[in-house]
Amino acid sequence: MQIHPLFWLVPVASIVALSMAWVFFKSMISADEGTPRMKEIAEYVRKGAMAYLKQQYKVVFIVFIVLAALFAFMAYGLGVQNPWVPFAFLTGGFFSGLAGFFGMKTATYASGRTANAARKSLDSGLKIAFRSGAVMGLTVVGLGLLDIAIWFIVLSQFYTEGSAALITITTTMLTFGMGASTQALFARVGGGIYTKAADVGADIVGKVEADIPEDDPRNPATIADNVGDNVGDVAGMGADLYESYCGSILSTAALGAVAFAATDFQLNAVIAPMAIAAVGIFLSLIGIFLVRTKEGATMRDLLKSLSLGTNVSAVLIAAATFGILYGLGLENWLGLSFSVISGLAAGVIIGQATEYYTSHSYKPTQAISAAGQTGSATVIIKGIGTGMISTCIPVLTIGVAIMLSYLCANGFDINMDPASISKGLYGIGIAAVGMLSTLGITLATDAYGPIADNAGGNAEMSELGEEVRHRTDALDALGNTTAATGKGFAIGSAALTALALLASYIEEVKIAVQRMADEGNAVMQEMITKISDIPSFMDYFQVNLMNPRVLVGAFIGAMAAFLFCGLTMEAVGRAAQKMVVEVRRQFKEIAGILEGTGTPDYGRCVEISTRAAQHEMIVPSVLAIIIPIAVGLLLGVAGVLGLLVGGLCAGFTLAVFMANAGGAWDNAKKNVEEGNFGGKGSFAHKATIVGDTVGDPFKDTSGPSLNILIKLMSMVSIVMAGLTVAWSVF
Amino acid sequence: MQIHPLFWLVPVASIVALSMAWVFFKSMISADEGTPRMKEIAEYVRKGAMAYLKQQYKVVFIVFIVLAALFAFMAYGLGVQNPWVPFAFLTGGFFSGLAGFFGMKTATYASGRTANAARKSLDSGLKIAFRSGAVMGLTVVGLGLLDIAIWFIVLSQFYTEGSAALITITTTMLTFGMGASTQALFARVGGGIYTKAADVGADIVGKVEADIPEDDPRNPATIADNVGDNVGDVAGMGADLYESYCGSILSTAALGAVAFAATDFQLNAVIAPMAIAAVGIFLSLIGIFLVRTKEGATMRDLLKSLSLGTNVSAVLIAAATFGILYGLGLENWLGLSFSVISGLAAGVIIGQATEYYTSHSYKPTQAISAAGQTGSATVIIKGIGTGMISTCIPVLTIGVAIMLSYLCANGFDINMDPASISKGLYGIGIAAVGMLSTLGITLATDAYGPIADNAGGNAEMSELGEEVRHRTDALDALGNTTAATGKGFAIGSAALTALALLASYIEEVKIAVQRMADEGNAVMQEMITKISDIPSFMDYFQVNLMNPRVLVGAFIGAMAAFLFCGLTMEAVGRAAQKMVVEVRRQFKEIAGILEGTGTPDYGRCVEISTRAAQHEMIVPSVLAIIIPIAVGLLLGVAGVLGLLVGGLCAGFTLAVFMANAGGAWDNAKKNVEEGNFGGKGSFAHKATIVGDTVGDPFKDTSGPSLNILIKLMSMVSIVMAGLTVAWSVF
Repeated sequence: MQIHPLFWLVPVASIVALSMAWVFFKSMISADEGTPRMKEIAEYVRKGAMAYLKQQYKVVFIVFIVLAALFAFMAYGLGVQNPWVPFAFLTGGFFSGLAGFFGMKTATYASGRTANAARKSLDSGLKIAFRSGAVMGLTVVGLGLLDIAIWFIVLSQFYTEGSAALITITTTMLTFGMGASTQALFARVGGGIYTKAADVGADIVGKVEADIPEDDPRNPATIADNVGDNVGDVAGMGADLYESYCGSILSTAALGAVAFAATDFQLNAVIAPMAIAAVGIFLSLIGIFLVRTKEGATMRDLLKSLSLGTNVSAVLIAAATFGILYGLGLENWLGLSFSVISGLAAGVIIGQATEYYTSHSYKPTQAISAAGQTGSATVIIKGIGTGMISTCIPVLTIGVAIMLSYLCANGFDINMDPASISKGLYGIGIAAVGMLSTLGITLATDAYGPIADNAGGNAEMSELGEEVRHRTDALDALGNTTAATGKGFAIGSAALTALALLASYIEEVKIAVQRMADEGNAVMQEMITKISDIPSFMDYFQVNLMNPRVLVGAFIGAMAAFLFCGLTMEAVGRAAQKMVVEVRRQFKEIAGILEGTGTPDYGRCVEISTRAAQHEMIVPSVLAIIIPIAVGLLLGVAGVLGLLVGGLCAGFTLAVFMANAGGAWDNAKKNVEEGNFGGKGSFAHKATIVGDTVGDPFKDTSGPSLNILIKLMSMVSIVMAGLTVAWSVF
Repeated sequence: MQIHPLFWLVPVASIVALSMAWVFFKSMISADEGTPRMKEIAEYVRKGAMAYLKQQYKVVFIVFIVLAALFAFMAYGLGVQNPWVPFAFLTGGFFSGLAGFFGMKTATYASGRTANAARKSLDSGLKIAFRSGAVMGLTVVGLGLLDIAIWFIVLSQFYTEGSAALITITTTMLTFGMGASTQALFARVGGGIYTKAADVGADIVGKVEADIPEDDPRNPATIADNVGDNVGDVAGMGADLYESYCGSILSTAALGAVAFAATDFQLNAVIAPMAIAAVGIFLSLIGIFLVRTKEGATMRDLLKSLSLGTNVSAVLIAAATFGILYGLGLENWLGLSFSVISGLAAGVIIGQATEYYTSHSYKPTQAISAAGQTGSATVIIKGIGTGMISTCIPVLTIGVAIMLSYLCANGFDINMDPASISKGLYGIGIAAVGMLSTLGITLATDAYGPIADNAGGNAEMSELGEEVRHRTDALDALGNTTAATGKGFAIGSAALTALALLASYIEEVKIAVQRMADEGNAVMQEMITKISDIPSFMDYFQVNLMNPRVLVGAFIGAMAAFLFCGLTMEAVGRAAQKMVVEVRRQFKEIAGILEGTGTPDYGRCVEISTRAAQHEMIVPSVLAIIIPIAVGLLLGVAGVLGLLVGGLCAGFTLAVFMANAGGAWDNAKKNVEEGNFGGKGSFAHKATIVGDTVGDPFKDTSGPSLNILIKLMSMVSIVMAGLTVAWSVF
């Protein structure tokens, strides 16, 4: 078919992103890594991180082989699956894994060099850390668009005729996201367990019992803790957002193919999300180059510098959207542009709200610090209360974004006319794309955090001077703030992406029915005539709130979110206990360790975290895949939609609660450490350390893992749509 | 109309229940209250509790006047409300308040007498405590059925003709539940805040800082703590279950009137839930008389004795159900009986699962104790993990009960034929009635707990002998177990009741439209023709999962559960901090207080709890009422149904999580106190005390308050149905 010229922006943007990532990487690697001691520390962390990644990829490899075989059997044996899925599943997973690998490799090379550059000036340190973070950001968006562009070009050769071709192409491509989802699952859950087992273990024995500072080289778990930052916060976060990025673009394309099937610009509606994402890459690059600072910069200046980059990118993308959608000749280009902007704005508002509830510049976190004066129990109670209350703004923001993007896209038609529903859902999808179009720079900001954190660790362990340590502390503090807003962004985009996937599920069911009908299945031939548009689909499958299958599905969805969270919390608890026992043992058995004359056995702690992560991620991961399949078979299409909505609503709220409670506890402790309520070593300090330790798995394991769960359940349902329709009990 | 003779069981059962309550009360009050010191302590608690209740009723009185005026304006001014509602609203609230008043009065008279009876023998103590608990159980069911019977008889005089009459009567009666809901809201939220502010405050300073035991008379907050048990666990729990009891019976009656509108046994289907509840009272009484024990009984024997009573009642009710439904001549009496049994069975299974996850006889709670060895942070992490995982069985049980009760009631017809949907929903309602039919005895078991707890407190403060204290400890330990299963029962029944209310909401909307149509509103006249059965209702109001209003409603529902929880957690945190400050002050300023020579100022602590509860309950309460109204006006009927489903799924799961985590922490601490992992005073003990303190508001404030929220949001929507239809934006 005749592809619109704007499409070619997609492969070009992808190649530009990957090239710039290469340039940033090269410039970082050419920098000096510092003293022999610094190199040694960096080497420890690098080795530990790579060893873990290798282990994880081994497990993931087996899972991919098994799932690919299953999809192949479903496609070629049972005929209930798209024949392209097994191959595309593998490419999605491969590219996501590759992005994680590059991102983490860069991060582990960059942290030592950041510490060394900080010996020269603050700006040098910031530049190395931030541009190395940008490697991750640009690799993720570059590889994501590359995968999408290649498959779109390939499939366009096979399906060429009429509006049905584009629907087939886009719904086929959507199932590729399953590879990215599976990779993300293991990266987020495994990485999350790894990092917090090490962190919690290190804190409990080091800070609370032995009274030594964070990142002290005498603590045997400190290297594992630093490895964890890379494994969880770089590779895990990257895989999570890679999934959201591809998922939102692909599902919007699929929704566009359906919504504009009867019009002349169907193809352009399919290309629109890709084109917005492509332009987003160029404009993110502009933002990346704007991030710089000068010596003597305060925390405020640093934050301003990062915000400037992100905000300039966002504003430019908003402006460019009008041009792109107008250029693509979409009828309602103006309305759709506002849909995109509502997504972009929602991302910014959620980020701001997250900062309000988790930064100790504001009341909520200060009140948690104050609660430290009456002990750790009131710190926990207050933190949980704050986290729960903090769900209000993000949920309302997402709610408003949903309504606005839906209504702007269909000319403010709230009625359930089939055409306006499809257009409205396309609007929700394109809002998700809008939110994620800044990913090149927002992910750079995220990945910057753990690099700066590790640079601080390196400086501490290498015993660099006071001034250097002061600079790395400033860089690290900035990273903590960006981590909180980054988490808000990741959750918000996961919610909108899951919603777009939910809408696409319906198209996927229709395609599955069509495929079986084409193969001569009489039941499906009758069914396909009854589910042509969304209202009749809803009617046929009885997807309304008085259907007990929908209700039971929704109950199970809400429960799945809690169960998944509970399993990951327990995993961290168990692994951390092992770590505590090991660190206590080393303190007791290795002579002179606390005096700094004996060397701790770092490797043993790295091994404990690695094993625990590998072992503990299996049950929650398998559950996340099995629940939607089981619900599909037992409760049918209506049950699956109930499951996805229940899981999405409860999971999103739970994720915000956990991320914000965790972030607030972290900063409440920092607030005390800055001299408030008694300062370091006070009663309140000990109480807030307990809060911080509890908050670790909240904000870095269970909370973020929920992002994966809500997307993955939709993705599994999409891939298994054929099975559900063919075999469900009802 | 000709009322079926089985209806007369209802007023008779009500009078029998109230008479037996009177007999039990009289026999308790005639018992000796013991030594002057015992009388003095009991008097302190009684005065504090009554003073609080008076304060609360003052606030509630104002709220009732305001709401009744609002309903009157809606009914007579705007014509969007049923004209009976203002009056019936007041009776529902009055009877619920009366039940709370009697129950608490009995409890506060009984605890001293229980302690005194325990000086004689264990059996005497158990009998007084349990039969006093039964006063609460029987008063609640007696007054509940009395209110229902009176209104049914009255309204039958006004609406007499045809099947429409019964639909009008039952949907009118349903709105009466609003009174019970409002009363329950204040009782549960206010009571929950009161009891935990005192408990947390007393524990933090007493147990953790001053190292004195629970209920020690030297602790100034100890009387407030004992008052709290009565205010929260007796009056609060009673009002909660009064609401579930009336709500489930009334909504099932409304669903029955619709489902069997075209048949000869419409009236009998309306009477069926009332008749089952009435027979449940007689059979609960049999169970109550079976509860006895003998001297030297172990915890196991005591538990067996209580279980015997409950289980015998449940089995007898199951058997009687077949007879009642057969006797009422309902076509599918056999299937409906199994619907009832699925509700009864779900109650038992949820109770068992709660016990498994919260009793230290089982692994989950033991593992929390073990986590105490690595500190309070791991105790919290482990407890939260356990609580989240524990949601699995209750949610699946409710899911199975929903499917089974639906399918048994409509002859296993999963398809959405309008008639079978209505019958299926009636089945879900009658399952809720089945679960609650044992309320006479299950609530007795619940209310027994705080009485035994207070008896223990009285014995401790009156410094009775070792042996007596040992007996009251045994009674108290039993109370802790029944409290956990009782909480599971309260949550489970709230979920099924809310579901029945959800289904009734549709009938309420139809009635509201009909009323306005009858008054000549042309829009409503057209609308009423399009919403005659459930599928066309769903279609007309677009209540499907692709409607953004449903999705946004569901998001807000899930968020409302978290917000409500967060506000109540914060309320307890704030109030407890005030209590801590006060107790610390008294320890410092009152000479000889810790040596036992100075007298603490108990009254000041009672006052702090009372004020905090009054003040802190306002915001969450108002929110719970306003959210459904706002969603109705902004997002219409579809948005309201989304809200209710989202709130129900997330709220139920969250409530189970919080109740079980709290219960498990409590017993993990007891497990350590029994000598495990170092026993009293050990590192693990201190760690588990933190867990227990955090768990207090989990299990006794926020968790149980969610029961109210999920029912109240449905009830508010039902009462405001007319407003939503007439004025909603879309």
